[in-house]
Amino acid sequence: MIRIGIDANGGDKGVTSTVPGALRALKEFPELEIVFYGDENKIKPLLTNMDRISIVHTDKTMDMGEKNPVRAVRAGKDSSLCMAMQAAKDDEVDAVVTSGPTQGVVMAAHVIIRRLKQMERVALCPIIPNMDGKGRLMLDVGANVELRPEHLGEFAIFATVAAKEVLNIENPTVGYLNIGSEPGKGRELDKEVYEYLSNLEGINFYGNIEADQVIDSPVDIILTEGYGGNICLKALEGTAKGMGKMLKQEIKSSIGGMIGYLFMRKALKRFAKRMDSKEVGGAMIFGINKPVIKAHGNSDEYAYYSAIKQAIKMVDSNLIEKVLEKLPKKEESEDDGE
Amino acid sequence: MIRIGIDANGGDKGVTSTVPGALRALKEFPELEIVFYGDENKIKPLLTNMDRISIVHTDKTMDMGEKNPVRAVRAGKDSSLCMAMQAAKDDEVDAVVTSGPTQGVVMAAHVIIRRLKQMERVALCPIIPNMDGKGRLMLDVGANVELRPEHLGEFAIFATVAAKEVLNIENPTVGYLNIGSEPGKGRELDKEVYEYLSNLEGINFYGNIEADQVIDSPVDIILTEGYGGNICLKALEGTAKGMGKMLKQEIKSSIGGMIGYLFMRKALKRFAKRMDSKEVGGAMIFGINKPVIKAHGNSDEYAYYSAIKQAIKMVDSNLIEKVLEKLPKKEESEDDGE
Repeated sequence: MIRIGIDANGGDKGVTSTVPGALRALKEFPELEIVFYGDENKIKPLLTNMDRISIVHTDKTMDMGEKNPVRAVRAGKDSSLCMAMQAAKDDEVDAVVTSGPTQGVVMAAHVIIRRLKQMERVALCPIIPNMDGKGRLMLDVGANVELRPEHLGEFAIFATVAAKEVLNIENPTVGYLNIGSEPGKGRELDKEVYEYLSNLEGINFYGNIEADQVIDSPVDIILTEGYGGNICLKALEGTAKGMGKMLKQEIKSSIGGMIGYLFMRKALKRFAKRMDSKEVGGAMIFGINKPVIKAHGNSDEYAYYSAIKQAIKMVDSNLIEKVLEKLPKKEESEDDGE
Repeated sequence: MIRIGIDANGGDKGVTSTVPGALRALKEFPELEIVFYGDENKIKPLLTNMDRISIVHTDKTMDMGEKNPVRAVRAGKDSSLCMAMQAAKDDEVDAVVTSGPTQGVVMAAHVIIRRLKQMERVALCPIIPNMDGKGRLMLDVGANVELRPEHLGEFAIFATVAAKEVLNIENPTVGYLNIGSEPGKGRELDKEVYEYLSNLEGINFYGNIEADQVIDSPVDIILTEGYGGNICLKALEGTAKGMGKMLKQEIKSSIGGMIGYLFMRKALKRFAKRMDSKEVGGAMIFGINKPVIKAHGNSDEYAYYSAIKQAIKMVDSNLIEKVLEKLPKKEESEDDGE
């Protein structure tokens, strides 16, 4: 059996997306067991039976606008998010899926489940929709604000295994997000990273890529040093959203636009679907002892189901064990708590 | 008279966009004088008279794919780009407009025209189209790879004057591009910048803004430390271009899409126009002794004309003199050549 812990109270929509999403996954995967961490008074009415389902009750939720995730995790151990993480730590579930606040999820995973002894940093790794319809892994996009080349090396190895196991890509290529494509471009850090990745065994390093290539990417894995990744991803999301909004405004502003829309509806829907992150699941958190998927805060049933599917793949493929085999060995004595 | 030097050979389209663009500006602005730096054998056939026009011949052009701008500027003083810059240095023209390669333009402006004694760095400042139809200034987006808070302070003061004079914005607001909106977010540098800008006189500091706000910006001026600005701008351009391409593909892939297009054509054109950087002119280079406008490499006649209009505004408003009054005074002895 694969046991997935669900932060049922989490996200903008709470149980109305997490529970139906989980039920959909239960139907598709007979080997799946779900543990809901959340408000049983709200969860139970949504269930028709308790087959392969259990509920651990809590009516506490980490606030989506949480500005101080460290405090929220330390003080809010009885939130649905932290309880699901604790269950993963205690090996009561094999993975956690949550649509809670990003920094809170990263922090809770780090503090409660704990970092892998062989990794020095934790990374947030979403799957970026691309023009060819295939997803790309991009990391780190916000778990860290400052990284060193060796941290990016760890992430590159982790993502290489994940791209193979989760996205079924043989020999995935790794690019480094930089402000120019040639070697020698960028800040001192960027030059050091380029040098480091060029000499790193176990990855297929392509070289630098630029931010305008991210949605039409020549590489499978896009490495960034946290700050640049966050900027790039938000610029991408903001532009996609803004353009969608402007397109709607222009269509609605004329009769021709409205009539045209009737004919073009399907084409526009396919277009929207191609850029929709719901299709590709959630962001993975790499570097901790159990798979954790952070689904989008406004995930609907389908997006949540996709995130659960992704978690199942991560568990089923023994992703973390496979990564550990590839990572350089470290001293056991090292502190992993930070 | 306002004398504008045109790098006529520059850009992807060379004289076929620079010359018609300049002629259009000449028609509109009776006080305008144009000096073309470029191939007179190609320029002359495009002219009907020489009224307010002169040509300084050179058949050399800086390559659009130039990878080593320092060498290109030092070795290629007879390129149309460098000759226009030299004319600005020698006060033969009041401003330069070019669609040459960005790094070559920045380098030539810096090395030939020279930096203002009161500025420590030069900035590249495009105007970013926004959803409300108004442009926003964003700087620096690629003239520097690493900046300190005091450099950003200089840029903020420069852009505040430019927003007023060129975009006609009274009391423009300044935001800092960061990976979170609250104070205290980001890297050490970002926290220092926030602190510095909060205490800087002569600007209207709003606080941090995030990359998803850039095309729907609450501020008039978006400050970035070079690296982040480059990433953000390229992500924005790449996404806009990619989405446009996907939309076309989806429309063309079905009969309904094609029929719909016939009705919706105008709405789609208005949509494209709203995101088109051609409407808002070129990127300004701040921090040198004369106004320089870098038009997009693939500028057509209209885009080039818009860039010239912008240069006229910069000259006509005495922008640089006004900025110098606002900047803190520096020692004259300081080296400005770098």
